[in-house]
Amino acid sequence: MYFVSDNNAGVHPDVLAAVVAANDGHARSYGADPVTARAEELFRDHFGAHAETVFAVTGTAANVIALAAVLRSYDTALCAESAHVYTDECNAPERFTGARLTVVPTADGRLTPAQVAAFAASAHPPHAPRPRAVSISQPTELGTVYTAAELRAVADAAHEHGLLLHVDGARLANAAAALGTGLAEAAAGADVVSFGGTKNGALAADAVVFLDPALAGARRMLQKQAMQLLSKARFVAAQFVALLSGELWRTNAETANATASRLAGVLAGLPGVELLHPVRTNAVFASLPRPALAALDGYGGVWEPGGTMVRFMTAFDTTDADVDAFATVLHAALNR
Amino acid sequence: MYFVSDNNAGVHPDVLAAVVAANDGHARSYGADPVTARAEELFRDHFGAHAETVFAVTGTAANVIALAAVLRSYDTALCAESAHVYTDECNAPERFTGARLTVVPTADGRLTPAQVAAFAASAHPPHAPRPRAVSISQPTELGTVYTAAELRAVADAAHEHGLLLHVDGARLANAAAALGTGLAEAAAGADVVSFGGTKNGALAADAVVFLDPALAGARRMLQKQAMQLLSKARFVAAQFVALLSGELWRTNAETANATASRLAGVLAGLPGVELLHPVRTNAVFASLPRPALAALDGYGGVWEPGGTMVRFMTAFDTTDADVDAFATVLHAALNR
Amino acid sequence: MYFVSDNNAGVHPDVLAAVVAANDGHARSYGADPVTARAEELFRDHFGAHAETVFAVTGTAANVIALAAVLRSYDTALCAESAHVYTDECNAPERFTGARLTVVPTADGRLTPAQVAAFAASAHPPHAPRPRAVSISQPTELGTVYTAAELRAVADAAHEHGLLLHVDGARLANAAAALGTGLAEAAAGADVVSFGGTKNGALAADAVVFLDPALAGARRMLQKQAMQLLSKARFVAAQFVALLSGELWRTNAETANATASRLAGVLAGLPGVELLHPVRTNAVFASLPRPALAALDGYGGVWEPGGTMVRFMTAFDTTDADVDAFATVLHAALNR
Amino acid sequence: MYFVSDNNAGVHPDVLAAVVAANDGHARSYGADPVTARAEELFRDHFGAHAETVFAVTGTAANVIALAAVLRSYDTALCAESAHVYTDECNAPERFTGARLTVVPTADGRLTPAQVAAFAASAHPPHAPRPRAVSISQPTELGTVYTAAELRAVADAAHEHGLLLHVDGARLANAAAALGTGLAEAAAGADVVSFGGTKNGALAADAVVFLDPALAGARRMLQKQAMQLLSKARFVAAQFVALLSGELWRTNAETANATASRLAGVLAGLPGVELLHPVRTNAVFASLPRPALAALDGYGGVWEPGGTMVRFMTAFDTTDADVDAFATVLHAALNR
Repeated sequence: MYFVSDNNAGVHPDVLAAVVAANDGHARSYGADPVTARAEELFRDHFGAHAETVFAVTGTAANVIALAAVLRSYDTALCAESAHVYTDECNAPERFTGARLTVVPTADGRLTPAQVAAFAASAHPPHAPRPRAVSISQPTELGTVYTAAELRAVADAAHEHGLLLHVDGARLANAAAALGTGLAEAAAGADVVSFGGTKNGALAADAVVFLDPALAGARRMLQKQAMQLLSKARFVAAQFVALLSGELWRTNAETANATASRLAGVLAGLPGVELLHPVRTNAVFASLPRPALAALDGYGGVWEPGGTMVRFMTAFDTTDADVDAFATVLHAALNR
Repeated sequence: MYFVSDNNAGVHPDVLAAVVAANDGHARSYGADPVTARAEELFRDHFGAHAETVFAVTGTAANVIALAAVLRSYDTALCAESAHVYTDECNAPERFTGARLTVVPTADGRLTPAQVAAFAASAHPPHAPRPRAVSISQPTELGTVYTAAELRAVADAAHEHGLLLHVDGARLANAAAALGTGLAEAAAGADVVSFGGTKNGALAADAVVFLDPALAGARRMLQKQAMQLLSKARFVAAQFVALLSGELWRTNAETANATASRLAGVLAGLPGVELLHPVRTNAVFASLPRPALAALDGYGGVWEPGGTMVRFMTAFDTTDADVDAFATVLHAALNR
Repeated sequence: MYFVSDNNAGVHPDVLAAVVAANDGHARSYGADPVTARAEELFRDHFGAHAETVFAVTGTAANVIALAAVLRSYDTALCAESAHVYTDECNAPERFTGARLTVVPTADGRLTPAQVAAFAASAHPPHAPRPRAVSISQPTELGTVYTAAELRAVADAAHEHGLLLHVDGARLANAAAALGTGLAEAAAGADVVSFGGTKNGALAADAVVFLDPALAGARRMLQKQAMQLLSKARFVAAQFVALLSGELWRTNAETANATASRLAGVLAGLPGVELLHPVRTNAVFASLPRPALAALDGYGGVWEPGGTMVRFMTAFDTTDADVDAFATVLHAALNR
Repeated sequence: MYFVSDNNAGVHPDVLAAVVAANDGHARSYGADPVTARAEELFRDHFGAHAETVFAVTGTAANVIALAAVLRSYDTALCAESAHVYTDECNAPERFTGARLTVVPTADGRLTPAQVAAFAASAHPPHAPRPRAVSISQPTELGTVYTAAELRAVADAAHEHGLLLHVDGARLANAAAALGTGLAEAAAGADVVSFGGTKNGALAADAVVFLDPALAGARRMLQKQAMQLLSKARFVAAQFVALLSGELWRTNAETANATASRLAGVLAGLPGVELLHPVRTNAVFASLPRPALAALDGYGGVWEPGGTMVRFMTAFDTTDADVDAFATVLHAALNR
């Protein structure tokens, strides 16, 4: 199961050590503890002094809280048809907000300013839901990354039309590592960000970072209603302290990105293999010939039953040796 | 902060060790891992071979999933006005189900068969919501426990009137320890149980145990929609394995119950102190004289601002010495 | 079925004539027609130039739209346990808003400023839902009326604590008639009013009148989502034009009130009959002796199966002769 | 405003007469009256003895009640991207059910069995919502009609894959008239039908017809929660009695269809005009040259601002003379 999912990876030892260290006697519950205060401070360090943060334990929950702060039931948010909020959250955003996700096709997971403008222009109140927000994924579920200029263009298009911008950053660290920026820069222009720690080496730690203070007021009630206010909150916060107080978030992301890049290099050199999207972060999508598919077991996941498209995900703990071992398997399969 | 809340306690070392041990390379995500399979098996061992279980990380979430399996939006469930689902879940049950919680006053948190019958008789379709379920807490939020006979009487009353029974067992281990029974017996008659590991020494581990197979079909979709399907699910499951594979759940509960009993004994011997509910589990509610209230700092929580009622909660890690130290403080305050 | 319900009455001939007259060729749909414009203007005439109104066809819908404008899902609104929003709307307010109705007992359906203050003081975020609004019925479901001073006291208490005031005025015309005021005065202090035309002689016409402009912005989207935006909207608006352009609303209400008063006088003079609430509008609640109950058929509705409490409702079309005929029946039954 | 919308038409005189006739003294409220019983019986006459019906006053409401009977919050229903439930109901279906509408493009509003099969195959529980139903419009919003064979093919595809079939029949009478069948045949295979009276000459009358008895149990509670249970229900039912007790439904539909056909003939003969969809019912979609667009005022609605596509809708009261007058206008505009 080397490259099936970055969720299959475990916990980075430093994160787990922080969890263990947090188990130090009694502490006030529901987030009124010093570890939570420290984690919130770290988010302000990264995202700005005005950033308000609440924590969650799944990426779906972070997205739902973010969208619930942005959308009323008569609203709609635009997203790519590949967006996790649309494909993999079992209607949780819709059920929790009452609002609609309006989806559009994209080349590689990235929305364009023109799509944002068309979405805004589709307003037809009160018959159709009100265009209210744009939700983008950075990086996208296809592993691609909005450049700083692309991000600015989408954010500007949204704001010009009175729309709010949500960034699903379940793997934001990987985007920042790819762009060579900080976390805030990788989500520049966002009004609210879902930040994922889990795929970055945490056990279960996601955050909703409110950059528009006008959206932040109900965050604790939304966190509670979304069933994400853990009584022993310090153990979630400790994971963020481990990731964000130094460079662990970046080195974990860089490791994943670099091994994905190495894997892409291997695949690109193989006959009959086609890379399907630019490889910028820790996802590699490729079309494989049948012999390679037959040899895949444990190394990657076929995207649709019977298809030839395979998704490979690397993680903070992927090694060059893992990639090279798979390269050997592939070569053997294709030279058989 | 010795007796303010059992949520202030940390994690039992054996549970934390199990979490650390689960960090052993890659594993299938979203619950398709062997640790989750083992934890589900343990719930069948405790609750019967037909029991189906999904996991969550807050008690609120377990209650919401359970109620969502039971209630349609035009339904109502009866509960005590002290019930956690009513007092401390910020409308999450209502928002998630659309249904209503109908509350009635109780002497000490326990519903009676007569209240169940009156609830059923209040049906007035389609104008009023349909009585559909009864939700009881075992033990109650006031620390009291339904005896086996009381439990049977409430369950029978519910079922005779076509109502389903939900047991909020956020502290079910404490009830079982008090009754000297297994977990299943402490929730006998339930159609669905919320079982709490967190207050029993876990980091964050709650479960929804479906005993009526007709309710269980949508459990994984409800778990996902309730944002409780963790990608690295093994780390929740490992906590249950630690608690339920041996007697840790019981010894943790017994420790909490015994120290609460010791504390109740201390309080009962003090002038001007009144115990407000029978002390059967790990909660002690008492009315304290002003000098004792003034000396309370860190040892218990005044229930309402300006009031004299104090809630003391013990936990798996409370020691006799903790109680005795508090006894010394109280004696000093009252003899000043 | 003379006094069973004011909903059993039909449509006042002038209202029906207005509906028929509105059937004059084609008109723009969904409320962009001149009859709707005229009805909206009449509401401004009655409630003030800043009043914004949307129409509905059931009182439940008007209440739901009003509450949806006021409440977020993490909020709660206080109401009397006799309130229609709680007793007779099958969870529609909860399902549509996600919020909770917090109920308190009252002597005769009227909330007190002290109850409002206690409700505000119960805030316990983020664990309990946020106290956000007070919903009163004017007149109450028990036929009683808030005096101008009582209304002001409740509104002031709400506003002092940052709560909004909703007035369920399904029979507001009856309250205004009883108080000898205009409609606006009968709901003075309200931020949003549900105004009922149906019980006042209409076919199916209710309105939501927004007096706080900050609440009005989403009214058309809420109306649409609440499935109350009729395509042939003019036929609802025409009913309001008939009622509100002259004094029909008042004369209809006065007729109902006066005949209820006459009925109360009859009942008060009978042995063994007890009037249960002050009779101010068109509802009479009385406890009847068994022989009277046995003779009731068609004249009033026993409130609970097997009980002795009877509700009598008069309507715009009730006559003194109706009351006197019933008086004869009662006298015969009691003298048998 | 001759052809802008069939909602702009008023009420057929026979329907209005039935409403007036229903105003005959007191009657039991909330549907327990003989007119409602008669209307329900007429639906059984048309749709079969097992058909259970509840009434509503908007097409949106009928669709919402139907979908709420079919979908749980973790479900999704397939519909065409032109479907009214998706384009014109302001999220009401989503808000009320929590479920998602999955949309696919179509040539002319009609779904194909292959699309149904692909939808069923997209199941990915618990990550994606569960495919549970197919919602088709008969006729479609583009005026096209499923033939009996096409309807059977879609219904069979749905049922083979365990999906339920909802037919949005806001203009079902027009489809039946076009097909030369009864109403039931025009929706053959449906598990639940929204039947529209409003566009067929009623004031405000829509119905939800449950053909699968397993779906019908909660219909009255759903009707109440959807705010469609009118107190003076007889006045809605009377409209259906007028339409369905004889042939009025059919003659009204035939008039609308025939005048649309006449209009299509006029347009087809004009230079530069393109008919965009087959004209089977009362909708005509055409692309018009600019001079014709400039002369359009009052006769049809440009579909999108700045576009050349125009929708013309005829109604029960459209006359050949109306069409011919417009033909004269068009000829003049194009010959200028």
